[in-house]
Amino acid sequence: MKFKKIVSFIPNEALDSNYWQKIDAVANKRVMLAQDDHGVTKELADADCLLILFNGVDRITIERAPNLKYIGALATGVGKIDTKYARSKNITVTNIPGYSTEAVAELTFAVLLEYLREICRAKTESKQTRTSEDNFHGAEIKGKDFGVVGLGRIGSRVAEIAGGGFGANIYYFSRSPKQMHASYRFERLDQLVKHCDFISINLELNDETAGIFNAEIINNIKPKSVVINTAPLELFDLNALDSRLAEGDITFIFDHTDPGDINDSDLQMLKQYENCITYPVLGYVTDEARTAKQEIFVNNLESFLLDKPVNIVN
Amino acid sequence: MKFKKIVSFIPNEALDSNYWQKIDAVANKRVMLAQDDHGVTKELADADCLLILFNGVDRITIERAPNLKYIGALATGVGKIDTKYARSKNITVTNIPGYSTEAVAELTFAVLLEYLREICRAKTESKQTRTSEDNFHGAEIKGKDFGVVGLGRIGSRVAEIAGGGFGANIYYFSRSPKQMHASYRFERLDQLVKHCDFISINLELNDETAGIFNAEIINNIKPKSVVINTAPLELFDLNALDSRLAEGDITFIFDHTDPGDINDSDLQMLKQYENCITYPVLGYVTDEARTAKQEIFVNNLESFLLDKPVNIVN
Repeated sequence: MKFKKIVSFIPNEALDSNYWQKIDAVANKRVMLAQDDHGVTKELADADCLLILFNGVDRITIERAPNLKYIGALATGVGKIDTKYARSKNITVTNIPGYSTEAVAELTFAVLLEYLREICRAKTESKQTRTSEDNFHGAEIKGKDFGVVGLGRIGSRVAEIAGGGFGANIYYFSRSPKQMHASYRFERLDQLVKHCDFISINLELNDETAGIFNAEIINNIKPKSVVINTAPLELFDLNALDSRLAEGDITFIFDHTDPGDINDSDLQMLKQYENCITYPVLGYVTDEARTAKQEIFVNNLESFLLDKPVNIVN
Repeated sequence: MKFKKIVSFIPNEALDSNYWQKIDAVANKRVMLAQDDHGVTKELADADCLLILFNGVDRITIERAPNLKYIGALATGVGKIDTKYARSKNITVTNIPGYSTEAVAELTFAVLLEYLREICRAKTESKQTRTSEDNFHGAEIKGKDFGVVGLGRIGSRVAEIAGGGFGANIYYFSRSPKQMHASYRFERLDQLVKHCDFISINLELNDETAGIFNAEIINNIKPKSVVINTAPLELFDLNALDSRLAEGDITFIFDHTDPGDINDSDLQMLKQYENCITYPVLGYVTDEARTAKQEIFVNNLESFLLDKPVNIVN
C-alpha cells in the first residue's frame, strides 16, 4: 500500500536525504510546496497525504483536499491544525510526541542561566580582552520558587531538572492537578505567577489554553521574575504582555521568532524591550531530537499505510 | 580584643561598606594595598592581620610580617598560600568554604549549555533579525557520560545536577574513592577522560593535584568532548593543553582569566583557539554567594579574636 500523491510543506532541509528516500518508497508521487505557494489549491485536489512542519491546516485547506486521508506533522504541537474537522472528513492526523522533550527542557535552562549569569556578555568581553568579573552580576536557581506551567512531558522534565537537579522549589499549574511528585505543589495560575522567581511555560496550545496568559495573569507576575516561554506565543495576550514589558520589571525569554509563530509587527513590538530576549526556535534543535523526529515521522507514515496507525491526535 | 593593624590586599569594591565597617570595628588600623604595591614590605612589618583575595602568600611575604597572627582569605581555595609555613610561625589561616558551591556548579551548566546550544550566537542573531534555526546545531546532556573530576562540595553538586537533574551517567575521579551515591562510578583519571563526553574539573589545587592533567591524561581526552574547568589552571600542563587544543578535536572552557590565575602569554596561547572558550572568573559571582562570602569572612575574623576560630585551613 502506497500513497498516490504526497503534498509536502516541509522544506527539503528539514529531513535528511535517507528519510526522504524512505518517504518516496511509500508514495507514487511527491510534490514539494512552499507554505504560501499559490499552487496549493490545485496540488491538494488529488493529494491523499499532506506533510507539514508547524504550519496551520484549517478548514479551508482541508476542503481543498477532498481525497486527503492523512496529515503528518513533523512536530509535536498540532494546535494550528483543525484536527476535529479533519476527523469529520476521516483524515488521520499524526504528530511526533516526545522527540524534543529533553531538547526543550535543556534549552529552558540554557537561556535561563545565560540571563542569570550574563554569559553572552562575559563570553564576548573575555574573547576581546582580559575582563574583570567585578562588573558582572549573577543569581542562583537553588532555593528559588520555580513555577512550571503545564506539567506534560516537557514541563515534567523542566520540573525534574529545576527541583531534583538545581534544588529549586517546584510549583506547577496544570489543567488537571497531578500527583506526579510529592514535592511539587499545585497552584492556580494567578497564584503561581505572584511568587515564582522563575516561570517556565510548557503548555500545549489548544482552545482551552489560547490566551490563558490574559491581562490579569500577566499583570500579576512577580516583579524581577524571569519568564521562559518555549510554548506557542498564542498562549499570551500580546498587548498585555507589551504593556507589562514596558514597565521593565520582568524579563521575558522566548524562542518562537519564526514567521509561523509571530508576525513582524508583534515581534518588533516585543523586541524593542531590553527585558525581552528572543531566540530562534532552538527548542527542538539537537542531534538527538533530529534523529528521533525523523525516525518517528517516517514510521508514522509507514504504520498508517500498514493499517496500524500510531501517534494519532484526532 | 582587636587587631592592631590590618593590611588588606582586598580591593574596596570586593566588600560592601557595611562589612568594611564591621572589620574596622575589630581593628585599630586598616591599610589598603594593591597586590603589587611596593610599600608592602614596610606595611607588613607591624601588621598582625593580613586579608587577601586570591593572592598568593609565600614564605618571603610571611617573613616580612614577623607580628602576623592571622591571614583571612576571601576565597575558598588557599592553594597559593604557604599554609604550612604560616602554621610554623603560629599564623592562623582561614578560608570561606562552600560559599560559592552552588554558584560554581550552576555556572558549569551555564557555559556547557551555551556551548551545546550555540546560545550566544542565537541570541545575537535573533536580536538583529529574524533568524532561522536551520543553521544551528545542538546536543543534549541527557544520557551522556559525564565525568566529574574532584568530588568535593562543588563536584558533588555538579554530579547531582548532571545526574539527578539532566539524566547523564556520572563517572567521577577523586583522590579517595567515595560512596556518596550508588549510581556514581569511580574511575581512574586516565580511564575517565577516555570515554566521558563532558568533563567538569572541580579539584582543589594543592601539591598533589598541581599538574595532574599531564600530557598523557590530556592526550587521552575523548575527541569531541567538552572539558569545563572552573578550578585553577595550575592543574594543567599548559603546553600539553596547547598541543591538544591545536588538534581542534576537544573543546575547553575555563573561567580563570584574571592575572592571578594565568599570565598573558599563556592566556593568549589558549585564546588563539576557537575551541578554547574563556570567561571572567564568574564562578563565585552571584548575589547569594556574595552575601554568604562576606558574612563568613567577617565572622572568621570575629571568631578568631574571640579565641573561637573557625574555618582554619592550617
